Amino acid sequence: MTNHRFDAAIALKPDSAERELFHGGTSPDYGNMVGPFGGTTAATLLQAVLDSPEVLGSPVSLTVNFAAPLADGPFTIATRPVRTNRSNQHWLLELQQDAVPVVTGSLVTGLRRETWADTEVRPPEVAAPEELTPQQPPDGIAWAANYDIRFAQGALPTPGSGESADSTTTLWVRDDPPRQLDFPGLAARCDVFFPRVFLRHGQYVPAGTVSMTAYFHADADTVARQAADHVLGTARAQRFGNGYFDQTAELWGRDGSLLATTHQIVYFKA
Amino acid sequence: MTNHRFDAAIALKPDSAERELFHGGTSPDYGNMVGPFGGTTAATLLQAVLDSPEVLGSPVSLTVNFAAPLADGPFTIATRPVRTNRSNQHWLLELQQDAVPVVTGSLVTGLRRETWADTEVRPPEVAAPEELTPQQPPDGIAWAANYDIRFAQGALPTPGSGESADSTTTLWVRDDPPRQLDFPGLAARCDVFFPRVFLRHGQYVPAGTVSMTAYFHADADTVARQAADHVLGTARAQRFGNGYFDQTAELWGRDGSLLATTHQIVYFKA
Repeated sequence: MTNHRFDAAIALKPDSAERELFHGGTSPDYGNMVGPFGGTTAATLLQAVLDSPEVLGSPVSLTVNFAAPLADGPFTIATRPVRTNRSNQHWLLELQQDAVPVVTGSLVTGLRRETWADTEVRPPEVAAPEELTPQQPPDGIAWAANYDIRFAQGALPTPGSGESADSTTTLWVRDDPPRQLDFPGLAARCDVFFPRVFLRHGQYVPAGTVSMTAYFHADADTVARQAADHVLGTARAQRFGNGYFDQTAELWGRDGSLLATTHQIVYFKA
Repeated sequence: MTNHRFDAAIALKPDSAERELFHGGTSPDYGNMVGPFGGTTAATLLQAVLDSPEVLGSPVSLTVNFAAPLADGPFTIATRPVRTNRSNQHWLLELQQDAVPVVTGSLVTGLRRETWADTEVRPPEVAAPEELTPQQPPDGIAWAANYDIRFAQGALPTPGSGESADSTTTLWVRDDPPRQLDFPGLAARCDVFFPRVFLRHGQYVPAGTVSMTAYFHADADTVARQAADHVLGTARAQRFGNGYFDQTAELWGRDGSLLATTHQIVYFKA
């Protein structure tokens, strides 16, 4: 825990009476067009488990379902350790506002052990972040101001962009000001890509994540080794239709480690 | 509902007292090396919601967390409609055996409406199923006998296979005997790929799915249009390490429709 704005945004207080209940609130620093940045919400759900003395190992798999828009304001997160096995642990998570469920989630944590390892995919070959210029959304989306994002491919559309045949975005991202990477920081970064439909249409249209999943390939040492450096992300959609599209993405450390693969299904109007 | 063995395997009976509780049981017809085929479990969880008179629209996103091995025998599934919005609905699912949680899940269903559509990925170019020979696992894994699976790439390892540098499997799959495709049948097919680590190592090693997610791109009409025909699936791993690997896959209709994209994280020992 540092004194970065991100830590303040995902901070939780344990309930005074109920053991697996936490109190938090949305942060104006990480506001999105409507409600908070989904990445912060995912990170906060993860933080609720990491705050638990019972947690076994480090995050392996996180799913977050956005059942309704979060309102700006306070919320509670209930964590439920469903099952603890020898080497992993399953959690269910529920965020409520005014006693109404708004976000649900599930998390698997695990003790990692040395095994045969291989990364089959390769990081995209792009210019170093030092050779690229940071880009911020023009309409002052608050959360983006807390990241240094440098697009190598598929930048945010601007008035002259026009349509694109390819939904791929590849970008470098670090916190701004820099912050040591940890699992909540990595979870938030899984949602750092703007909706792929913006890129295809060359303009902003209504869109919102319905469900996202992150698989954490990095162990705690690999995450720590990234320090506060840029992480390389690449995301694309596979199919758009009937009001939904998917997004599949990879997050890479600058040292070539595949930190996470992450997927989401997104609602859109276009 | 047909009288196919698959329908018997995923059949549920509503509890006589509790409204959102269902009774089912594992089927020896769909047994795996240990416990039942995960695809049948995913399909049964989905079926529990589809059996509900409250269900809104068709499946959009399904996540299934395998918290512990299912024992052969009876189970209950509790469904909880967390939130119903204008155009989608969020469900939580929990399968228990002897009052202990074994599998948890979440499902988003949605009303689909006509929008702009595009499929960015392309189906793999492979021989038609008629030109390929069905392959069954040598050790008589029960569930596989209920599918006609024809490998175009990355078949099941046999004693002489040796290691492979690529974890990709591409296959055609239909029920055997044939069965009209529906959403549970599609959900089951998301887990039809054997563990990718088998292919890399050229042999069977201990492995099991920890969490799987399916995004359904097809609407009910597109699913129905596939009739009982073969579906084309392609799956690969992106990273193996520290006892886990991921799998990302696509399921295509023979008519070129992307039916589903699906991802999982798998525990392994090697």
